[in-house]
Amino acid sequence: MVQGTANWNTEITKEWLQSYVDDWVQFYKKETKEGKVASYIPVLKKADPNLLGITIIGKDGMNIQSGDVDTPFTIQSISKIFSFIVACMERGVSYVLDRVDVEPTGEAFNSIMHLEMRKLKKPFNPFINAGAITVTSLLNGKSSEEKLEPIFQLFTKILGYRPCINEDVYVSERETSVRNRAIGYYLIELGYLESALELTLDTYFKQCSIEVTTEDLAKLGLVLANDGIDPQTAEEIIPRNVVRLAKALMLTCGMYDASGKFAAYVGIPAKSGVSGGIIATAPPRVRKETLPFIEGCGIGVYGPALDDKGNSIAGIKLLKHIATKWDLSVF
Amino acid sequence: MVQGTANWNTEITKEWLQSYVDDWVQFYKKETKEGKVASYIPVLKKADPNLLGITIIGKDGMNIQSGDVDTPFTIQSISKIFSFIVACMERGVSYVLDRVDVEPTGEAFNSIMHLEMRKLKKPFNPFINAGAITVTSLLNGKSSEEKLEPIFQLFTKILGYRPCINEDVYVSERETSVRNRAIGYYLIELGYLESALELTLDTYFKQCSIEVTTEDLAKLGLVLANDGIDPQTAEEIIPRNVVRLAKALMLTCGMYDASGKFAAYVGIPAKSGVSGGIIATAPPRVRKETLPFIEGCGIGVYGPALDDKGNSIAGIKLLKHIATKWDLSVF
Amino acid sequence: MVQGTANWNTEITKEWLQSYVDDWVQFYKKETKEGKVASYIPVLKKADPNLLGITIIGKDGMNIQSGDVDTPFTIQSISKIFSFIVACMERGVSYVLDRVDVEPTGEAFNSIMHLEMRKLKKPFNPFINAGAITVTSLLNGKSSEEKLEPIFQLFTKILGYRPCINEDVYVSERETSVRNRAIGYYLIELGYLESALELTLDTYFKQCSIEVTTEDLAKLGLVLANDGIDPQTAEEIIPRNVVRLAKALMLTCGMYDASGKFAAYVGIPAKSGVSGGIIATAPPRVRKETLPFIEGCGIGVYGPALDDKGNSIAGIKLLKHIATKWDLSVF
Amino acid sequence: MVQGTANWNTEITKEWLQSYVDDWVQFYKKETKEGKVASYIPVLKKADPNLLGITIIGKDGMNIQSGDVDTPFTIQSISKIFSFIVACMERGVSYVLDRVDVEPTGEAFNSIMHLEMRKLKKPFNPFINAGAITVTSLLNGKSSEEKLEPIFQLFTKILGYRPCINEDVYVSERETSVRNRAIGYYLIELGYLESALELTLDTYFKQCSIEVTTEDLAKLGLVLANDGIDPQTAEEIIPRNVVRLAKALMLTCGMYDASGKFAAYVGIPAKSGVSGGIIATAPPRVRKETLPFIEGCGIGVYGPALDDKGNSIAGIKLLKHIATKWDLSVF
Repeated sequence: MVQGTANWNTEITKEWLQSYVDDWVQFYKKETKEGKVASYIPVLKKADPNLLGITIIGKDGMNIQSGDVDTPFTIQSISKIFSFIVACMERGVSYVLDRVDVEPTGEAFNSIMHLEMRKLKKPFNPFINAGAITVTSLLNGKSSEEKLEPIFQLFTKILGYRPCINEDVYVSERETSVRNRAIGYYLIELGYLESALELTLDTYFKQCSIEVTTEDLAKLGLVLANDGIDPQTAEEIIPRNVVRLAKALMLTCGMYDASGKFAAYVGIPAKSGVSGGIIATAPPRVRKETLPFIEGCGIGVYGPALDDKGNSIAGIKLLKHIATKWDLSVF
Repeated sequence: MVQGTANWNTEITKEWLQSYVDDWVQFYKKETKEGKVASYIPVLKKADPNLLGITIIGKDGMNIQSGDVDTPFTIQSISKIFSFIVACMERGVSYVLDRVDVEPTGEAFNSIMHLEMRKLKKPFNPFINAGAITVTSLLNGKSSEEKLEPIFQLFTKILGYRPCINEDVYVSERETSVRNRAIGYYLIELGYLESALELTLDTYFKQCSIEVTTEDLAKLGLVLANDGIDPQTAEEIIPRNVVRLAKALMLTCGMYDASGKFAAYVGIPAKSGVSGGIIATAPPRVRKETLPFIEGCGIGVYGPALDDKGNSIAGIKLLKHIATKWDLSVF
Repeated sequence: MVQGTANWNTEITKEWLQSYVDDWVQFYKKETKEGKVASYIPVLKKADPNLLGITIIGKDGMNIQSGDVDTPFTIQSISKIFSFIVACMERGVSYVLDRVDVEPTGEAFNSIMHLEMRKLKKPFNPFINAGAITVTSLLNGKSSEEKLEPIFQLFTKILGYRPCINEDVYVSERETSVRNRAIGYYLIELGYLESALELTLDTYFKQCSIEVTTEDLAKLGLVLANDGIDPQTAEEIIPRNVVRLAKALMLTCGMYDASGKFAAYVGIPAKSGVSGGIIATAPPRVRKETLPFIEGCGIGVYGPALDDKGNSIAGIKLLKHIATKWDLSVF
Repeated sequence: MVQGTANWNTEITKEWLQSYVDDWVQFYKKETKEGKVASYIPVLKKADPNLLGITIIGKDGMNIQSGDVDTPFTIQSISKIFSFIVACMERGVSYVLDRVDVEPTGEAFNSIMHLEMRKLKKPFNPFINAGAITVTSLLNGKSSEEKLEPIFQLFTKILGYRPCINEDVYVSERETSVRNRAIGYYLIELGYLESALELTLDTYFKQCSIEVTTEDLAKLGLVLANDGIDPQTAEEIIPRNVVRLAKALMLTCGMYDASGKFAAYVGIPAKSGVSGGIIATAPPRVRKETLPFIEGCGIGVYGPALDDKGNSIAGIKLLKHIATKWDLSVF
């Protein structure tokens, strides 16, 4: 195992970083044994719980790949970032935030209760299901294809290819997600849904079923890390104010009801999904004492064995280790 | 009014910053009319609702003072940062976090309900009253004087003088805070209090009654901004990991149940108190395009007219304006 | 107005009772102005808010009719008594009570929250919507017609005719009741529904749309009052233990979240519906000092103007007056 | 064991009833093994969990005693009936009910949560601790002695002797009941307490510590059963409307969060306490088919082994058996 944090600043090379990551992926892989793959969507149960992989992409094109990076997986709740971003781009930030709040919540991601307790108030934030379904209803379009097209275009521009929907997962989600249907009907009653429930849920299940890799997540994270600008083309793909809003949400609400602990111990904007994916971003700012190469990098993690909060159990530990040692915290 | 954000980078001087702040303090002072001074502690009602003042202190000693900076006020909930820091220094971070969580909550700061709903679980975070009272009970010492001494020593080291307790406020808090007593008894039942309730509450009321100025808050913020190091002496006053934990809590839970909106729109670690004070920190990292002088600065604000969440109504708007224009966001 | 409670026992005739009821219907009719007809189902909004009528049927065939007794109305939540009774007769009491509790609740009739707070526990009672929908799912049958047939047979036997479903109300309920659909999906997730949701809800909306008159409710109440036996034929139509269970539920949970007050001030088993109907039962026991003729009578009330709890505003006052003056309380 | 329910009506004697009760006390005594004595007040832990006793007193003086009727025990929550009655007699029913509601609740007896959820609303009912403490604060008097004097006078008149306060239990309650103190401070904040908290709690702990026997409870129950009139002296000791209100509360809220089940399965007004006592009342009305002698009787039960709801585990079963077989249900 690579040793020492002694004179990182002077001797670090990209090869050293790759080797460092390889060591720790190896180390944390055993932690996958402590978790369980998601069971609430039947197809997700088929995932191999022993997998762990990470991709880190830097502003200068550095591309670190380690572990099980070849297995595609569905994006799940990580899609909530991008439906929120697209809704803000299409409808304006204030229109969206009139319909969904940006407050963290101590409740689980699928809570209905808080909607009832808060009576006529809007969903807490776009990352709990009630908020995410509301956001999806705001997307322009009369079919799920139309609604999702701008998300696919965004992904295509950033990833260099157009990702697919995993039909098996989509069908499985559609058939089993009674809780989301309960939330949906509740939202209708509260008056928040702006498109028909079936269309909204169909779109929502499809957006969750988009298939990605850790490299895809790292590329998406890279754009988020750099204020919406793709560092390789210098093109602004997402407006800066929308990206910052999204990253604030990621930091305060991105890891379900472990978000506070992740902010405290890791301190970088990140978002997980129940398939075991995590997207994360390093801050774009330089600290003098920081490692070279990693400023503003994007990170994608995959590890389908989850902890009891629904986050990749080994993925979180790996991210925490790297973020701490490489001093990535925004704080 | 100072115009333009055009060529800030080349022409900014400290005088320009001072003048810019003066203009906007003037501008936002009228917003104080929309708020109300805190009424739940009788003595606080006497505050002049029209006041608004700010102090910004930079790493190089830059000291911008503007508006009503001469009126001392009690620190109130801002003290929760420092009792948490001292408890972590005395007992160790993990000991403290075994007794209080670090999760944000959608509930109001004085909620008992969530304790009951979560049954045997610990208070959500050190910044709601249930968590803060628990933290105060963890401070070493057999009297409130002993318990508070390390906080006073920390303040004395940073401020250059030993602040006083405002006896009127302390007595008023002690006599009127029945809700905190209800919370306290509930905490006893749950088994979280580590010192006697009367001692704990007495200490808590005293720590909330410490009198400070905007300059004091800016100096405290400066040390938090710079990883616990006082830039002028280079002394590490607070361990870096504890400071980062505190700043993560400030960002996720610092502004009561408007914390999420503050993180989204302002994006800097901050903490408010019901007397109308706010402490805030700029990130220690340099962005190339950022204004000079402001990296890692500490900020203290005072404006006793509060909004309906309990935060200084004009203070928040002033902070938001400056943080946005000066690009202070951590995201 | 008929005066005096002085020597009731010696001089009371059925004519006197009729005249007494006429007086007080007249008196309470003005109270309808204080209420509002139900608005959540569009068709119900068409009801004439000024109506107030009552029918009281005695064991010996006494039939007091007063006020607006000719307007048919839909049975709404009053049907929950009879779906519960039929489910108990079909599946056995213990089978039903394994799936729905019999505890009163301080929550509103359409609360989802308590299901979530109680986690895996069953709905509080058969009279809140979550419990009623669960009960309807337990009815035997593969179509709503099959499921409802035993309820219609029960009604036909007691009423002497087979009531109809009001198609307009049924269609209106089906189209608008998004909250019930939210509850339904939640119940699926909890595992309580024993027939498909669409079938269950369709059956539920139909059972709520059965059209009755005050005389019908009085006849149904008469059978409930007399331990399930029709006094005129001496036939046991409902088993005694099931009737008593139903009446206990009516007393503790029959009037939404005003059930406790109704038990305290009126003290007779009763159940209201949002169309403005109320069914009530006098106790079958004789008190020496009680008025003649009224032992074990059944009562039907109609007054579509509702109070803020969803109960007929004038109907409740009329019932309270009569129950108090005639000493009908079970206590 | 006494057999048969065959020809009860013709052959029942008081001796037969005594023998019947003896048999079933014997039978249910083994159920005490399934329960546990209350542990939250240390002194209560000393009770012998194997005890089970019952006293039934009839209007004509019939006095059935069976099992462990000689052990005195503290009245605990059963006192809430009598503090409520005395408060109504002193202040008027409407004054009391303006400060405490009469709605059942699905929550546990010591819940604070519902107070917070209902914001400024009053406690649900006089039998949860929040309501009972409010009621005790309404009692006239400047000392606990003065406040309790009318309760003692009521007891003395009914029991024929003045009961004592068990000092050990009182001291133990006072020292350990932090939850009640939390509730008390919460009530102060809501503005419901009409006497100082310490005085109120001191009075409350004392009223709970009054020592009684099953015979005492049966005598108290006898007066409640008969509309407030002592059948042996024909004196009205409690106004009829207050008694009926109390019995409605007993039926809807008397057995903690098993009240609904007790109403459904047993169907008589009853109230339990954590020491293992239960007071119950038979209805004052005659049914033709009912057993002789038992009309309007009062019942006292003692069995300190509790079920998980806090009710005497064997006592409830014994009461249910007798109430069912003797047809005591009010329904």
